[in-house]
Amino acid sequence: MSAEPRLVEVRKNVLKQNDLVARALRDRFRQTGVFAVSLVSSPGAGKTTFLEKTLKSLQPRAKVAALVGDLATENDAARLARSLAPVKQITTGTICHLEAAMIQNALRDWEVGPLDFLFIENVGNLVCPSSYDLGEELRLVLLSVTEGEDKPLKYPTIFNSADVAVITKLDLAEAVEFDAAAAHKNIQAVRPGMPVLSLSAKTGQGMDEFLVFLEAQRRRREAVRLMPGSGR
Amino acid sequence: MSAEPRLVEVRKNVLKQNDLVARALRDRFRQTGVFAVSLVSSPGAGKTTFLEKTLKSLQPRAKVAALVGDLATENDAARLARSLAPVKQITTGTICHLEAAMIQNALRDWEVGPLDFLFIENVGNLVCPSSYDLGEELRLVLLSVTEGEDKPLKYPTIFNSADVAVITKLDLAEAVEFDAAAAHKNIQAVRPGMPVLSLSAKTGQGMDEFLVFLEAQRRRREAVRLMPGSGR
Repeated sequence: MSAEPRLVEVRKNVLKQNDLVARALRDRFRQTGVFAVSLVSSPGAGKTTFLEKTLKSLQPRAKVAALVGDLATENDAARLARSLAPVKQITTGTICHLEAAMIQNALRDWEVGPLDFLFIENVGNLVCPSSYDLGEELRLVLLSVTEGEDKPLKYPTIFNSADVAVITKLDLAEAVEFDAAAAHKNIQAVRPGMPVLSLSAKTGQGMDEFLVFLEAQRRRREAVRLMPGSGR
Repeated sequence: MSAEPRLVEVRKNVLKQNDLVARALRDRFRQTGVFAVSLVSSPGAGKTTFLEKTLKSLQPRAKVAALVGDLATENDAARLARSLAPVKQITTGTICHLEAAMIQNALRDWEVGPLDFLFIENVGNLVCPSSYDLGEELRLVLLSVTEGEDKPLKYPTIFNSADVAVITKLDLAEAVEFDAAAAHKNIQAVRPGMPVLSLSAKTGQGMDEFLVFLEAQRRRREAVRLMPGSGR
């Protein structure tokens, strides 16, 4: 199991249309200092609640916005708009994932000004989004404690396509007899060395650690970007 | 919204390979008196726990077996085997749904003898399995209380492809502040008249009602099958 399968994947499919668009997006995000973070998970893992809390917490000190994908309805955009951050819904119809071109189109007429963070909430699906690079800097895979500890083993590809695992709904861990050690072991079996954060967006437990982690990731990327001779 | 969209779909795609295989399976199930029930849901909605309890409960009075689909691992087959019913795993690799030909292949060398019920647990996914008829008599779509009440609105196609909705993990309803009225309303909005059963496989609440429902469905099918002049 390679430590960087996503990179390998991107290289292999360099000519594929989605990857060309994703690369253009990534270049643009880097040039303009936007840190793009995408979220993937099964339906109901708590992406929207987690994102709403994240947007609210970051907003006093950072400029944030979110794109949110779903087959139908604009419910998630409405929920996220309560954070007062700019939010745009992408409805995919019958398509079970977002594609780079959908991100490109959504950004085209969107006057959000300069951003520190752009969040991209993918369609709830543990299979389809794996192979679509969206130009994001960081991909989070969410796994709720109610889903069962063996999800990483059953859906290895999506865990391999992500950079960080986030265990959600920690407030329910006891009620569902969540076995944290087994979950961590299974994540590491599929993707050795993957950072894992555990939290509850409902109670706030673990949210501060997540925000510290996220801002450190962004600072690290900015340090590289602004380094003399980096060409950016 | 048609009350029978699956039937319409099957008719439209009559020439498609999957539907031809599914039709052959359905004919065979009907001729041999097997009542085939498939389960679809998002990953972690509790299909396997629910199915394990169902197999255990039915076994004293009925001959049962199960096929279970997953991208990777044979974990679910191992869990279901605890029920002592014959169980076979179908691993799909990167494919996010079962297809009729996979069912046909799995049944080919499987000496299970005459069955009253064959359960087919699909890959955990709320999108991909929608368009694949597996020859089943009844398709259950599971929705756990932890997933959010708006899933039917977000994934209308899978709810339209199913015959019955089963709300699972009822024991967690209070902890997650599940709004049962909203869930029911959303299911009916997408698929008017759809029967909805609510249960907890963990505590057993609602399981008896489900089993009574299931056996009534089978008896109804058998009554038609054995009717004089039905040609079967």
